[in-house]
Order: sequence, then structure tokens, then C-alpha cells
Amino acid sequence: MAKPILHSYFRSSCTWRVRIALAFKKIDYQYEAVHLMKDGGEQFTQEFIDLNPMKEVPVLVVGDQALHQSVAILEYLEEKYPQPALLPSDLVARAKVRAVVETITSGIQPLQNLRVLLKLKDEADRGPWAKHWIASGFIALEEMLKRTSGKYCYGDVVTLADVCLVPQVYNAQRFGVDLAQFPTITRINSELLQLEAFKESSPANMPDCQ
Amino acid sequence: MAKPILHSYFRSSCTWRVRIALAFKKIDYQYEAVHLMKDGGEQFTQEFIDLNPMKEVPVLVVGDQALHQSVAILEYLEEKYPQPALLPSDLVARAKVRAVVETITSGIQPLQNLRVLLKLKDEADRGPWAKHWIASGFIALEEMLKRTSGKYCYGDVVTLADVCLVPQVYNAQRFGVDLAQFPTITRINSELLQLEAFKESSPANMPDCQ
Repeated sequence: MAKPILHSYFRSSCTWRVRIALAFKKIDYQYEAVHLMKDGGEQFTQEFIDLNPMKEVPVLVVGDQALHQSVAILEYLEEKYPQPALLPSDLVARAKVRAVVETITSGIQPLQNLRVLLKLKDEADRGPWAKHWIASGFIALEEMLKRTSGKYCYGDVVTLADVCLVPQVYNAQRFGVDLAQFPTITRINSELLQLEAFKESSPANMPDCQ
Repeated sequence: MAKPILHSYFRSSCTWRVRIALAFKKIDYQYEAVHLMKDGGEQFTQEFIDLNPMKEVPVLVVGDQALHQSVAILEYLEEKYPQPALLPSDLVARAKVRAVVETITSGIQPLQNLRVLLKLKDEADRGPWAKHWIASGFIALEEMLKRTSGKYCYGDVVTLADVCLVPQVYNAQRFGVDLAQFPTITRINSELLQLEAFKESSPANMPDCQ
């Protein structure tokens, strides 16, 4: 089978999740840049909508199938390439890791993404809106991670929770959230950023980074 | 082990997802009502925050563990009680089902939930905001389901996609979204509502329904 093709935008935090998992599992893939701003957004071309009706990156093309939605892709990669694992084996532990994932991917990121900010009537509200939802989500996340973390989000091994945390902290920094309130999140993020998979997949290292 | 305890609010669409899976898998559980409005919201009591720092239902207590985030709970139930299955066995098929799940649980529901609506400055914007995000998500979902559906969202067997679809259609109806634009969604929803697991778990049949 040909290499998977990842349709990506360097700054997309949802796509960074997938890039981390691909790098962590050492899966070779082809990078296809989709510019979310240029010419009104390349995700709105009919060619792209045929790949993903949600008009979003990431899309991972495997064989003749286009997979979309980042957590669905992460679960696919975990099932297709189980080693190195990004989920623990114990069922309750898996549920706790997935709860961290979902707190970020359903509870925080959707509320601060660009299409939502653009829908706010008053442009001056965009920054404060994003900061509010990130900070209030991080209050819960900090409490969750106090209970589950070791070196990383769940004990001392890298999991899908970590894969989602780092891109969300990156967004928090872009929006100017004060991270001093969240010592556990900050500590784990720093640990993770020392790992090769997180470094090599970062926005700054993508070919389309401006 | 004692029966699982589900902390639920009858009208919570995220909790309905879990109730459907429990009913479909015929898992006996104890129902614990959490009134999201009474006395400012019972989810804000310290006792509840100890269970779930996100201050949301659902919470499923199994043994001495409190699981939260609805999709994490659904994945747990699927792993703990694999039959009857709510995910297909083929890996790409699982990814397609999970993409439908995530389109609803990350792409639509978070944008129309109560805490987000309450954050909009102008009260008159709340209804239109919810309708906008549901309708624009449903445009993508309709296209996705045209490609994958048979009798239900993915072929002719009930999956996690169906478990998430019905509560989202219920929300769409509450907000007055015109469903005539979405014939595939409407048809699948009608099919599903004939199934016992979807009927018995519905908001109208919950003990805390007013």
C-alpha cells in the first residue's frame, strides 16, 4: 500500500495531534499542505469537500479511503499500528485517557476555533471568547491531571491525552492565556516538548510554516 | 461488582448517548438525576465536581471509579461489554463510524450547549446561534451519511454513530432547525426511534422528566 497522505495546515492544532501520533509510531507519510486562509481557504474547494464534507483538516488518505476527524484518525492509527501504544491496556485507564482527550477535543478546542470566532458579531470579543473557553477548560483539565498524571498526562507513558494536550497548550499561548495558573499542564507540556515526536511534528517544522 | 450508577439529566443529549448504549447492551444500571437548572445547577456542588471537574453530566460510576465524557464512556462500554457490538470490526469502517460520532460530539453539540449559549452577550442571538451550528454541521453530516448509510448511519447495523445521531436530532428539533433539508438524517432518525433501546432511554421516559 502507498504511504498515507496527510492533508494538513501547519498551525491547525487538530492536525498537529495526528502528526504527533504518526511521528510517535514512526509511520512514514506524505505531507499535503492545505492553506486555510489563501484564496478564501483551500478547504472550501470542491476537490477538498469531496475528501471531507466538514471542510476541515486533518484528512488522512489511506489507500482509496479518506479518513477525517482527528480523534477518529488517532483511534484508527492506534488500532492499525498498535506499537508503540498510545492507550494503556486497562479499560478504566483507557477511559481516563480518553476523558482527557475529549475534554480537549470536544470541551475546549471547538469553542475557540477560527470558524467560531469569525461568527462572533463583535470582532473585539474574539480574543476574550477564546481565552475564556481555554481557561475554563484548563481549570477542569488541571484538576483531572493532578489525579492521573505522572511525568505525562496519565502516569509515565505517552498517551493520546498527551498527543492532544500539547497542541491545545500551543493554542492557549497563541491566545495569551496565563498558564501560570496551570502548573500541572505547564509541567507536562514542557516534558512532552522534549520528545522527538512532538518536536519534529510541531507547526514551526512544517513545510508550509510561514 | 455493584451496578454502574449513571449521573444523568433527562434532557442532556450527551447523557442520552450513554443511556442508549446501556439499553442497547442491556446493562442494568442505577439512575441518579442531576438537575442542571435547580438551585443554580446541581452540577456545581462540590460533591459533583469531585466526580467530574468539568461539571457536566454524564458521569458513569463503575466500582470506585467515576468515568466522564460521553464518548470515553461509550468506548469503555464497547470494550467492557463487546456484545452486541456498536462498532464494526473493519478498521476503516470503525474510523468512518467514529468520524460521524466526532462530527456530532466535537463539531456540533459543543457549540450549541447551554453554557455556550449563556455566554453570548445578546440573548436574542442564542437561538439563531444554535440553529446555525446544528444546520451547518448537518449539511456535512447529511453528505457523510449519504455515503455510508444503509438502514442506519453505517450500513444496516446500529453503531455508535446512531447512538450520537438521535440525541442530536432531538436537539435540532428543540431549536427549530428545519429538518426537511436533511432527508437522510431524518430517515435514519425515524428508523432508530422504532428501536427499543432508543425509545426506553429517551428524555420523556426518564424519571426526572418534568
